Amino acid sequence: MATAPSASNGGLRVAVVGTGYGSAELVRLLLDHPDVGEIRLYTHSRDGEAIDALYPHLAGFLDVSLRAYDPGEVASVDVSFFATPHGASAELIPPVLELGGRVIDLSGDFRLKDGSAYEAWYGRPAAPATWRENAVYGLADVYGDAVRGARLVANPGCYPTAALLALIPLLRAEAIEPEGIVLDGKSGVSGAGRGVSLGVHFSEVNENLRAYKVGRHQHVPEIEAEAARWAGGPVRVTFVPHLVPMTRGILMTVYARWRGAPTDTEGLVDLYRKAYGGKPFVRVLPPGRQPETKHVAGTNLADIGAVFDGRTNTAIVTVAIDNLVKGAAGQAVQNMNLLFGRPETLGLRRVPLFP
Amino acid sequence: MATAPSASNGGLRVAVVGTGYGSAELVRLLLDHPDVGEIRLYTHSRDGEAIDALYPHLAGFLDVSLRAYDPGEVASVDVSFFATPHGASAELIPPVLELGGRVIDLSGDFRLKDGSAYEAWYGRPAAPATWRENAVYGLADVYGDAVRGARLVANPGCYPTAALLALIPLLRAEAIEPEGIVLDGKSGVSGAGRGVSLGVHFSEVNENLRAYKVGRHQHVPEIEAEAARWAGGPVRVTFVPHLVPMTRGILMTVYARWRGAPTDTEGLVDLYRKAYGGKPFVRVLPPGRQPETKHVAGTNLADIGAVFDGRTNTAIVTVAIDNLVKGAAGQAVQNMNLLFGRPETLGLRRVPLFP
Amino acid sequence: MATAPSASNGGLRVAVVGTGYGSAELVRLLLDHPDVGEIRLYTHSRDGEAIDALYPHLAGFLDVSLRAYDPGEVASVDVSFFATPHGASAELIPPVLELGGRVIDLSGDFRLKDGSAYEAWYGRPAAPATWRENAVYGLADVYGDAVRGARLVANPGCYPTAALLALIPLLRAEAIEPEGIVLDGKSGVSGAGRGVSLGVHFSEVNENLRAYKVGRHQHVPEIEAEAARWAGGPVRVTFVPHLVPMTRGILMTVYARWRGAPTDTEGLVDLYRKAYGGKPFVRVLPPGRQPETKHVAGTNLADIGAVFDGRTNTAIVTVAIDNLVKGAAGQAVQNMNLLFGRPETLGLRRVPLFP
Amino acid sequence: MATAPSASNGGLRVAVVGTGYGSAELVRLLLDHPDVGEIRLYTHSRDGEAIDALYPHLAGFLDVSLRAYDPGEVASVDVSFFATPHGASAELIPPVLELGGRVIDLSGDFRLKDGSAYEAWYGRPAAPATWRENAVYGLADVYGDAVRGARLVANPGCYPTAALLALIPLLRAEAIEPEGIVLDGKSGVSGAGRGVSLGVHFSEVNENLRAYKVGRHQHVPEIEAEAARWAGGPVRVTFVPHLVPMTRGILMTVYARWRGAPTDTEGLVDLYRKAYGGKPFVRVLPPGRQPETKHVAGTNLADIGAVFDGRTNTAIVTVAIDNLVKGAAGQAVQNMNLLFGRPETLGLRRVPLFP
Repeated sequence: MATAPSASNGGLRVAVVGTGYGSAELVRLLLDHPDVGEIRLYTHSRDGEAIDALYPHLAGFLDVSLRAYDPGEVASVDVSFFATPHGASAELIPPVLELGGRVIDLSGDFRLKDGSAYEAWYGRPAAPATWRENAVYGLADVYGDAVRGARLVANPGCYPTAALLALIPLLRAEAIEPEGIVLDGKSGVSGAGRGVSLGVHFSEVNENLRAYKVGRHQHVPEIEAEAARWAGGPVRVTFVPHLVPMTRGILMTVYARWRGAPTDTEGLVDLYRKAYGGKPFVRVLPPGRQPETKHVAGTNLADIGAVFDGRTNTAIVTVAIDNLVKGAAGQAVQNMNLLFGRPETLGLRRVPLFP
Repeated sequence: MATAPSASNGGLRVAVVGTGYGSAELVRLLLDHPDVGEIRLYTHSRDGEAIDALYPHLAGFLDVSLRAYDPGEVASVDVSFFATPHGASAELIPPVLELGGRVIDLSGDFRLKDGSAYEAWYGRPAAPATWRENAVYGLADVYGDAVRGARLVANPGCYPTAALLALIPLLRAEAIEPEGIVLDGKSGVSGAGRGVSLGVHFSEVNENLRAYKVGRHQHVPEIEAEAARWAGGPVRVTFVPHLVPMTRGILMTVYARWRGAPTDTEGLVDLYRKAYGGKPFVRVLPPGRQPETKHVAGTNLADIGAVFDGRTNTAIVTVAIDNLVKGAAGQAVQNMNLLFGRPETLGLRRVPLFP
Repeated sequence: MATAPSASNGGLRVAVVGTGYGSAELVRLLLDHPDVGEIRLYTHSRDGEAIDALYPHLAGFLDVSLRAYDPGEVASVDVSFFATPHGASAELIPPVLELGGRVIDLSGDFRLKDGSAYEAWYGRPAAPATWRENAVYGLADVYGDAVRGARLVANPGCYPTAALLALIPLLRAEAIEPEGIVLDGKSGVSGAGRGVSLGVHFSEVNENLRAYKVGRHQHVPEIEAEAARWAGGPVRVTFVPHLVPMTRGILMTVYARWRGAPTDTEGLVDLYRKAYGGKPFVRVLPPGRQPETKHVAGTNLADIGAVFDGRTNTAIVTVAIDNLVKGAAGQAVQNMNLLFGRPETLGLRRVPLFP
Repeated sequence: MATAPSASNGGLRVAVVGTGYGSAELVRLLLDHPDVGEIRLYTHSRDGEAIDALYPHLAGFLDVSLRAYDPGEVASVDVSFFATPHGASAELIPPVLELGGRVIDLSGDFRLKDGSAYEAWYGRPAAPATWRENAVYGLADVYGDAVRGARLVANPGCYPTAALLALIPLLRAEAIEPEGIVLDGKSGVSGAGRGVSLGVHFSEVNENLRAYKVGRHQHVPEIEAEAARWAGGPVRVTFVPHLVPMTRGILMTVYARWRGAPTDTEGLVDLYRKAYGGKPFVRVLPPGRQPETKHVAGTNLADIGAVFDGRTNTAIVTVAIDNLVKGAAGQAVQNMNLLFGRPETLGLRRVPLFP
């Protein structure tokens, strides 16, 4: 549809489906959003439970109980956020869309146009092709215009958000080789969600560091597919994520061989300044400065630092985001703003929590 | 004065003096405050420096440089916050007050009416008696009315804020013995400020825990003096602070011998519910729940949990606050709201950052 | 029995039952022990599994697989360590003892002579009275002589070890009131074991602090019973444990009202120096110094600091231990040394891992 | 010299120069070393101070005071370790060598044969060419034989140790391209030493992550020079170190384009198994397993995991070490063992501290 949907009187009515960290973070941001009038929470397993039993930090802020999931109800609000696991979104969302709902999905189920890639990397059947093809990939700082008319927004993954903000300006400028790109990702533990396991047990993660899913993380095809749109041809990335003993934050370190005109760090930084001039959530750091995850904590910001390594003819670009905000709930709210024709910063312009 | 001062057109003009974490946190909160029109930053040593050189997380939020400290300028704004070290406040603030300024001081220099207590515990000369005596102790959730007409607010210390919120309702009800009170305080490292030293060196503090200033922390006389106002007689506390390997948060564990009518945990919790009913920043937890510092992170909230230990006839009360917000900058902004007749929650009603 | 049992040729053969952190730590210490010839690991649920599948850090150090639990086998070694949960020890250990085995139990099942206290605090039936009564409470630095002849050693709890090392010298000297004692305990997360749950989920524990089991921790009766032996009458303690965002370490802060001859910090420290002179694992810190958990990390040491607060007539004693070593596996190995007539430091004299 | 020097009666007499973490860790390891008879500590600035005033965790283990630095004394012991800053080693060590001393230097001053590379990357004059050229690069698991006859051992840097253990087997087998190698290093904060600064201030480092010295870390020429010896030609690496909020541990992630015969992960792991078979401190993990820094904490181990990414024809190799042990003091003691003809594991065969 071409025009932005208008909100119900009294502000937008929104539904949040799921009870993980993504949902909790959506609630935090939506509660502070001036145009949100009602927040409903849906669950499959804990209906009737008060939200502050699940998340005590919300006591006094949101006096609602979790509702049993009901597609009709969810379709009837202005917009619903699905912070549900891969697979669950693929099943739950199409019926809501068919009932006329408007959806922002935080899972990976509608991000890949290529169903066989989904099946290969996620190891389960892809969502229906129609909806995958109609979904708009909600990398809001790049594809904001496309989001404005969407019925279904596929909110990007946390690592892809960081990686693509670094890669797209370089690929668009044909400044780097589309092969041999190395993405070394480092994430805080909240990225693994609220489900308990030995892999996120405090005593095993604290004072520890490891790589995981080496070369086989499901964010690879998402990054490659979106990068390819700007490269005009296939892009191949070698991606290794690492688990860092902190709660929030992603730092993505991108290494790409330069093939553009000879440059230096100043030139590389300029390229980013031009790409993101006027973008309210992207801060391009001056030469000599490096992004830190704590400088964006709790916010929808993405900080980008760039160094040109003349010795090895390599662009080294680092991007810091808060994985739960810009990498999930914050970008989803930014997409909601875009969907409804609001200023994209509405409710999202907050100062990082430092230190 | 009896009436609240009116703000200049275009919102309050405020000055922040100092460059430590207290100042940075004030800037964060003031930037999000709807009634603040202008923020000026003053320093003695770094004038001319851009604020984001000192605090890169503020890049894009506040495009100002640090100004050389000038008492006349500081006196001319609507209100100034002094987040300066003990001793510096005592020297800098009286001239500003004499020039007609209105001041909220975050140091300990104006908190004690008893100058000899100050000199004994702080080891330096006390601030002029006139100003100490006229200062209003800004424990905002308790003394809000007194703050409304103040020229000089002595913003409470971080530990005293937590301790007094626990003690005052018990002392007012004559429910506990005024002697033999044990205060076991635990603080995140940001409470030690931004000054570098081996005691806050990452490798020495991480995965480590220790007590410090055992029995001789300068917050003792502050707690005892304010507690005594409610006890109708002297109060003696044994206070041991501990340094915990986290950045933000204070948990104060209070142990007091019961002397009121026989009670239980439910009765104790009720006492707090009555004391803080309607107070927007104090959350009294239901029996069986304990406060956690992360449940108040980044906010002006104080969470209180109470257990009555019938075996030992002891009230055990735990209070969690964010030391930089409720324990410093947040309470200071709450005091600013009170000073200017604003709703005390203005600009301060934010959802905790969890996880 | 009166004489120390002799080891089999080739060193002691030991069994470790259980797969939690206590067992892993026992393995670490036993591997470095010069008199241990064979280590067998027993489990109820994972038999056949290689130890390094369970604990990859042990790869290359111990090439054994977990064995299915068999009481006869366990009884046949020189000594067996049960690092099994409360309840499991009570069931498993008596048959081993009846078969002639020698056991060091790390659970709480044999620590309390008073079966009804066990049932009240643990909420389950007590172990058979005979064995509880015959068990020697293995606070090795205090009861070393009693351990020498034991068939069953009840290895102390982590918090009780720290609390009793502080309390016993004071009670023995009749220097403190036996009532009104406050024990504020702070523990790293490894004390909660390897079982996964939201309460030890990295993202919920990191940068967080809370009290738990306020006034009702099962270590209370253990502390009170052992303290009473030295007080010559009942002792009452108010104990609140706290969970600190670090992996290892306990810091116990003890507050007790003085009733001895007038003293000061120097006198208090002297009292401890006399109590622990010649004890190889207890370091009494000089006046003005406070113990830090990191100064004992990985070792069987207990560091004690003492301050006399003349204002409130209170002895403030802090004790730092590594909860998994002195608070569990290390003290168990010390008890093994005592059992077999070895020097108690054998295999345990290691420098703390700092930083 | 061709034969191993013999120790003085009563064990080796060793000197440690410097007071940073490297020295403290040397003391820890040397105290547990069965062949070390005497440890002397030298300093330029704190002579006369007791070691446990500087490092309280050592109380009771080493009853010595720091001595004023004296080259004659240092030259007279069996071997001296210089854990001194870059620049200081270059000045202090040659006189000791000229007096007949035997030295293991932990700084970077004698690692580079190419003096101009030193000057370019370190920004200061290189040490005298004679001694640089005669120094043996002490990557003990690879160059053990060369170390055996050395007068001066240049102990490798922490990052180079990890990087070279990954690279050398690949380069020796001509299996990877010598250009386009990406080294993404992640280090705990202890690698920055004990000097205080805002960059290692707890509140700024905790819950934070950043890259530093992007493309210009002084370990680059060290890695390239040693790698070139095995490549038979120049090697170029792009190296970005990152600061991770933990105290100990380095994880190095190596990305290299394959040019050998077609392979897979199993083949790549086999290559490492062959390279390090029989090496006591290198553990090659089976396919599917990734090294974790905590699995080597406190030890001289290096854990290596390898994945072949067939999609991008890239070898991805991760190496975990304890930066203060294998990356500094542990490897130095291993080199001492080699120097004196001892088994290289003597005093170093310890189980990692986990969790």
